[in-house]
Amino acid sequence: MIKAAICGGSGYTGAELLRILSGHPEVEITSVTSEKSAGKRVTDLFPHLHKYAGLIYEPLNKEKILQKADVFFMALPHGTSQEAVDYFFKKGKKVIDLSADYRLSDPAIYEEWYKTPHNYTDTLKKAVYGLPELHREEIKNSPLIANPGCYPTSAILGLYPAVKEGIIDIENIIVDSKSGTSGAGRKADVGFSYCEVNEGFKAYGIAVHRHTPEIEQELSGAAGVKITVNFTPHLVPMDRGIISTMYGKMLKKADTVDILAVYKNYYASEPFVNVLDEGIFPNAKNVRGSNYCEIGLKVNKRTNTLIIVSAIDNLVKGASGQAVQNMNIMMGFEEATALKSMALFP
Amino acid sequence: MIKAAICGGSGYTGAELLRILSGHPEVEITSVTSEKSAGKRVTDLFPHLHKYAGLIYEPLNKEKILQKADVFFMALPHGTSQEAVDYFFKKGKKVIDLSADYRLSDPAIYEEWYKTPHNYTDTLKKAVYGLPELHREEIKNSPLIANPGCYPTSAILGLYPAVKEGIIDIENIIVDSKSGTSGAGRKADVGFSYCEVNEGFKAYGIAVHRHTPEIEQELSGAAGVKITVNFTPHLVPMDRGIISTMYGKMLKKADTVDILAVYKNYYASEPFVNVLDEGIFPNAKNVRGSNYCEIGLKVNKRTNTLIIVSAIDNLVKGASGQAVQNMNIMMGFEEATALKSMALFP
Amino acid sequence: MIKAAICGGSGYTGAELLRILSGHPEVEITSVTSEKSAGKRVTDLFPHLHKYAGLIYEPLNKEKILQKADVFFMALPHGTSQEAVDYFFKKGKKVIDLSADYRLSDPAIYEEWYKTPHNYTDTLKKAVYGLPELHREEIKNSPLIANPGCYPTSAILGLYPAVKEGIIDIENIIVDSKSGTSGAGRKADVGFSYCEVNEGFKAYGIAVHRHTPEIEQELSGAAGVKITVNFTPHLVPMDRGIISTMYGKMLKKADTVDILAVYKNYYASEPFVNVLDEGIFPNAKNVRGSNYCEIGLKVNKRTNTLIIVSAIDNLVKGASGQAVQNMNIMMGFEEATALKSMALFP
Amino acid sequence: MIKAAICGGSGYTGAELLRILSGHPEVEITSVTSEKSAGKRVTDLFPHLHKYAGLIYEPLNKEKILQKADVFFMALPHGTSQEAVDYFFKKGKKVIDLSADYRLSDPAIYEEWYKTPHNYTDTLKKAVYGLPELHREEIKNSPLIANPGCYPTSAILGLYPAVKEGIIDIENIIVDSKSGTSGAGRKADVGFSYCEVNEGFKAYGIAVHRHTPEIEQELSGAAGVKITVNFTPHLVPMDRGIISTMYGKMLKKADTVDILAVYKNYYASEPFVNVLDEGIFPNAKNVRGSNYCEIGLKVNKRTNTLIIVSAIDNLVKGASGQAVQNMNIMMGFEEATALKSMALFP
Repeated sequence: MIKAAICGGSGYTGAELLRILSGHPEVEITSVTSEKSAGKRVTDLFPHLHKYAGLIYEPLNKEKILQKADVFFMALPHGTSQEAVDYFFKKGKKVIDLSADYRLSDPAIYEEWYKTPHNYTDTLKKAVYGLPELHREEIKNSPLIANPGCYPTSAILGLYPAVKEGIIDIENIIVDSKSGTSGAGRKADVGFSYCEVNEGFKAYGIAVHRHTPEIEQELSGAAGVKITVNFTPHLVPMDRGIISTMYGKMLKKADTVDILAVYKNYYASEPFVNVLDEGIFPNAKNVRGSNYCEIGLKVNKRTNTLIIVSAIDNLVKGASGQAVQNMNIMMGFEEATALKSMALFP
Repeated sequence: MIKAAICGGSGYTGAELLRILSGHPEVEITSVTSEKSAGKRVTDLFPHLHKYAGLIYEPLNKEKILQKADVFFMALPHGTSQEAVDYFFKKGKKVIDLSADYRLSDPAIYEEWYKTPHNYTDTLKKAVYGLPELHREEIKNSPLIANPGCYPTSAILGLYPAVKEGIIDIENIIVDSKSGTSGAGRKADVGFSYCEVNEGFKAYGIAVHRHTPEIEQELSGAAGVKITVNFTPHLVPMDRGIISTMYGKMLKKADTVDILAVYKNYYASEPFVNVLDEGIFPNAKNVRGSNYCEIGLKVNKRTNTLIIVSAIDNLVKGASGQAVQNMNIMMGFEEATALKSMALFP
Repeated sequence: MIKAAICGGSGYTGAELLRILSGHPEVEITSVTSEKSAGKRVTDLFPHLHKYAGLIYEPLNKEKILQKADVFFMALPHGTSQEAVDYFFKKGKKVIDLSADYRLSDPAIYEEWYKTPHNYTDTLKKAVYGLPELHREEIKNSPLIANPGCYPTSAILGLYPAVKEGIIDIENIIVDSKSGTSGAGRKADVGFSYCEVNEGFKAYGIAVHRHTPEIEQELSGAAGVKITVNFTPHLVPMDRGIISTMYGKMLKKADTVDILAVYKNYYASEPFVNVLDEGIFPNAKNVRGSNYCEIGLKVNKRTNTLIIVSAIDNLVKGASGQAVQNMNIMMGFEEATALKSMALFP
Repeated sequence: MIKAAICGGSGYTGAELLRILSGHPEVEITSVTSEKSAGKRVTDLFPHLHKYAGLIYEPLNKEKILQKADVFFMALPHGTSQEAVDYFFKKGKKVIDLSADYRLSDPAIYEEWYKTPHNYTDTLKKAVYGLPELHREEIKNSPLIANPGCYPTSAILGLYPAVKEGIIDIENIIVDSKSGTSGAGRKADVGFSYCEVNEGFKAYGIAVHRHTPEIEQELSGAAGVKITVNFTPHLVPMDRGIISTMYGKMLKKADTVDILAVYKNYYASEPFVNVLDEGIFPNAKNVRGSNYCEIGLKVNKRTNTLIIVSAIDNLVKGASGQAVQNMNIMMGFEEATALKSMALFP
């Protein structure tokens, strides 16, 4: 049994880590931190996590927690995560950072989008972008994983084969994403209150959302040249799930089945990516509560455009599930441990 | 008082016509038809329409109904509407057809997308596409109006000024639309049952949805050349509302405020189109139950792309409200009669 | 045209007053107050209220506002409403108080449940409980109306004939109510955030909810003796609507039709109460956005119990609609003015 | 590994059995039947069950299926289950019947409520009502289990200690229940379509719901005398979950803590019943997707009434999870096998 700590465990990703890890036979949670909820029981905030009735939130005292765990899941806000990650990393611990702080390898791009400098650029160089489908070997050998954002996970998995194989024109890629409300986190905010979100639908962060450079970084890596994308997120009146609808101009004529064959080949050995058959498209509900990503696609012959749709659960494959997947890879556990359950439907 | 009949009044658009017209001081409903519900009271199907407790569905006996009304709202299924519309039109009545049968001026395109021939091409030539913002003068002078589809209303109003003014490249227009579930109509279908739709989100009809040629017809008219578009509809777990997110490559550099100025100018005198200020974007909830269309937009300088977002209520501006607006124009009533209420929020 | 002010207009009941009054031919809104949103436009908070784009929230400066209006709608929090209501009342204005401050005629009961003394007991004596179905004549002749709570409106209308006519045992009345989330108001509170409410259902305030004494006061008035009731509210994942399911032991044997006849007779001339036929029961969706109350009932012969179900929209008949109804009665306008629209369905 | 067959596997309870059993280390699904979907893959109906991509629905040919399995989960409609259950039982198989056909020990009561005779009364005598908290020992020793209904599970677990211990008057028990929409099953029915259910709330089956005698049977067993109850189900716009709010007159004075102590003692060793601390009440969302039942209660001193609230997931503890729990008990497996996961929240 390894010991794990969750720093910043009072949000939805923290609760989801607790839920998923409760089924992991090799991991014991020894500490969970929260400044605001310090002293409260986990079940005071999340009654559904009744198996953790004895677990109490503590403040993030790094020195104190250092001794308690082998692996640290960092679910702190962007910006404040930097220093804590650096600390545990330098003390020789395994660290999986669910914030954005170590995802962008270029600190100038980080500062441009997050409006704060990166103060640990040496450590940043050691971080691996934790998308197993692209970087499994590096994840195996790195103690510091930057767990991908929810939107980037859905977009990159959907676009990677098309970009890598030169199927679509990289000049005009559009990522139109729709997310359930848990993506906004657990917070007191009129804008995310029930009556404002329910029966509504809207775009937000048009052209300025911080997940944009993350998508661009990984797709640029695939293409070998710098790519910019149009990324538009939308808020859906549902709890969980991201659907990304992606558009790229076809560089040469091909049928849907041809492109599907490329995709199925790319993800053939992936435990958590299901490429759907022709004519079948993903539904957020079919991955709810699971670590699976579903991908469907179609070539629009009239417009010569490839349309790809992907679905994930933003809190699982888009956050805590992928973090556990990364931990499994890092620790040499079977990759799907604690992640095998299929979606809760309906 | 004029007399109005609703042919095909047992669906959501029929119910919505009844709701809206209950507040119209110049119109009396004299007949409502339904084959399946003939003999039932309107309130048997729609208890909320209690003011119509005395109104009974009757079968569509054209000869019988002909005498009963001056204006005919046709809310029959596509295909079956053709003949009935032709009949009432030739008998000299005013007809507003909410089906798709008279929207596409080219019968070959109609047949290609609807898989059935158009048998009344002479009458088709007389039909006016009932989007008042584009065709108000023709509507005034025509007895036969083809009421636009819900998605096309949202897409055309959003794209028209940009296409007309040559702001965007017509080669690569993308319309990514999201609709509430009432767009599917009132029917017994597992796929639209509560547990299948709720907490789900999916694309459907990718590259093949029948509203595509309708969008293309009107935008081609604006551009003066034939346009094809990528149109992808999605199903949202909410009752009402369409949000369309539209993308077009900018033909020359401009700022958001410049494009907004063009749009505000275009729609300055329109009673039902609100172009929002910079930084404000539409929400389906803000137009729920109302006949208003909201439009917001942004120029993405990094990608040189214009992103436009529009919102309507699919059952009001996207169907029955627009039908009443057309009737008001045809009859010389004040255009906003019975359509003045603002959205129900929350 | 009379002039109306809304004190405390930044919540859902304030917005709903604005929406409803926008269709009132005899009323002009001259002032709307909010301390927190002072200086903002109504449309900054509620974009759907676009017709009030020129209306700016101002702080509640009583002396200043006094001159601006003839009738004052008070939508302030409980406790803080007391003094402002007293002020406008003593200055000779017509006042409709949507808070609970003037609903309970006994100040001791007020203090017991609201944990604050009533400092204007003289004014309290002049207040009329504004449920038109019970107190229409007094409302006509009073300048100070205490607009009923949402739950009490649903419960009292449902139970009044049964209690008044001695149909049920007053010893053991149960009111099990279920409310949409807008009943909690517009606020930043994790407990009412989308992800906490959606897909959940719970009871709250069991045995201690403040609407209890209000129900008891009016039913005691009907019975002529003091009644206590079991009142349990529940939170429903929907925006609007209250369904109350009420149980009372039958004092003598009777059939459902007999009791329905009593109810239909009681409410025969009421413009906003619909007693449904045998076998038909209310649905919150059938009154959404409307001022109507629907009532259905059944005698359970096996248990000798009368079960009554009522439905209202908590923001309309349960708050702002009823306030406008009261204003219409007070001012001598036709009682249903601006309140005639049927429910928005679906 | 034992072999299990699911007869009637195309509904939500069938799908939920497949989901839960996919995590059971001792069980292999060898057959799943459906008349209507025979020949289709499980994933054609339920794409989320991708691990069963190779499993094909077959018609219920009893002779053929008999050889395939050791234990039979019967999820057939009420009425049609009778004969098939009798067949497998008499052939010596273990049978868990999720229909209502073997729940009521008195065939006359069955016929009264289900309007069809019971033709297998000898087999009926052998059936054990499969609520482990009441009948664990009998379940261990019986090959035929009648899996309880969803509402009865929530009501009986909530009322049992109070009735058994003589805490409440059995003359006037009220069970006011609220269920998510999956309780209605997977079917094409306008009344359960998204737009009819969403944003609505209603009671149904008042005084006539078939789960009434099931509740009465078990509570009568607890009391030792015949009990009748008022049972009112309601439809909630959510997928899963039942909240039952129950009312009983206290026979002697006691505090909430006293009654809680009785309840905590009763369920102390139960793996799936959590009695909540004073002041905490259940939320359907806290048990979603899990096999747990939460119970909270309060004594209303003003009215001398005990108010109990229970929550379960209707598809898990209310159906398929409880069926697996029963199978575990019958087979001598650890009772919580495959049922340990906590709720999916949010």
